[in-house]
Amino acid sequence: MARIILAVDPYGDIGIDEIIARINMVKEYIAGVKIGLPLLIRFGLPGVKKIIDLARDTEHVILDFKLADIAPVMISTIEPFVGTGANEVIAHAFIGLDGALKEFKEYIDSYGLKLILVVSMSHPGSTDIMEHVLDKIINVVEKLEPYGIVVPATRPHIIQNVKKKLLSKNIDVKIYSPGIGVQGAKPGSALKAGADYEIIGRSILYSPNPLEAASLIARIHDELVRRR
Amino acid sequence: MARIILAVDPYGDIGIDEIIARINMVKEYIAGVKIGLPLLIRFGLPGVKKIIDLARDTEHVILDFKLADIAPVMISTIEPFVGTGANEVIAHAFIGLDGALKEFKEYIDSYGLKLILVVSMSHPGSTDIMEHVLDKIINVVEKLEPYGIVVPATRPHIIQNVKKKLLSKNIDVKIYSPGIGVQGAKPGSALKAGADYEIIGRSILYSPNPLEAASLIARIHDELVRRR
Repeated sequence: MARIILAVDPYGDIGIDEIIARINMVKEYIAGVKIGLPLLIRFGLPGVKKIIDLARDTEHVILDFKLADIAPVMISTIEPFVGTGANEVIAHAFIGLDGALKEFKEYIDSYGLKLILVVSMSHPGSTDIMEHVLDKIINVVEKLEPYGIVVPATRPHIIQNVKKKLLSKNIDVKIYSPGIGVQGAKPGSALKAGADYEIIGRSILYSPNPLEAASLIARIHDELVRRR
Repeated sequence: MARIILAVDPYGDIGIDEIIARINMVKEYIAGVKIGLPLLIRFGLPGVKKIIDLARDTEHVILDFKLADIAPVMISTIEPFVGTGANEVIAHAFIGLDGALKEFKEYIDSYGLKLILVVSMSHPGSTDIMEHVLDKIINVVEKLEPYGIVVPATRPHIIQNVKKKLLSKNIDVKIYSPGIGVQGAKPGSALKAGADYEIIGRSILYSPNPLEAASLIARIHDELVRRR
């Protein structure tokens, strides 16, 4: 079972056709794709739909706009993607429930889209504020019971702690971990800490040999999962 | 001096030409426009550029994607807007500095774009987490010294407290307040509490008579500013 979520972020002058070609190269090794604002802004809704179509036979087609707004704005942002084949949406847990995540989750639930909440982030500044309110962020997760959460591979202790805490309350969420490769964490390190998926972008998509990069990481993942 | 920032969020099936027509109706009363993800997704970069062109002779042409990501993603999101005439960008303070806001501010500074940080939000769930870390959020503002901050009209005590705190440290930021109208706060209430601008969307743009709605609010603002 694939454990790689491919972050499809364009860098430099790359065109949509080249991105599609590179995704096709590595498709057998990925569990899904994650599409963010840089792609949306460069290639518009038609460009995003091309990537969604390409990835719709993978399990996870994730819209990652790091939503962090009041409910009507988040709903209006996701509305155009209903029925496109995208099936998961990332939002920030820290914005809280009433008037934001509560109504947003009700809306996306009604269309069969799944919610993934950001619990922690991969950059050093995540310790300025977010790490101080980790307990409150986990409270939001417990109340909302999203499908998944984002916890970075650069903070494996948080992956372990959050997973333990949620499981002790019988809450089962998928854990998605960014921060592998360019951001410093080693492939496999998040799975080892308890994550379900590693979100990997640049070190596959911008490798001189994307197929080789993806298959190498997939082999590391398979080995780890076998040993569990 | 105008104190209205017009939030240009599309609702329902409104087309870009109708939005442009309504902005033109109220243009003499506004200090600027705020463009968010719902508009970007529906009308793409070309649609956003039309609104920017229309608003470029106002003082504030604000990109409000509530940015809350690592620096490379935020930079790659704003890159296509450099040189378009947009001059202010909204990001969340809570994500912290290193690897996020610090590098992002350096990037946008180098292109003359100004940073506006979200300090508090207008919905009830903002008290779940954000209000508990208001001091830490203000620390981020003090360290980064952005051009402006967002504090909602629904929380006038926070407008007053934050303004006092920042002024006591000789930090002068513009305060932008959403939450007027549909979200519950009265026009003028944020200015009264110390805000510089009130961000107003639906109660002008979706009024049966946008011109009348805008001129009425502008009169309330003028009266308040005269009395200061």
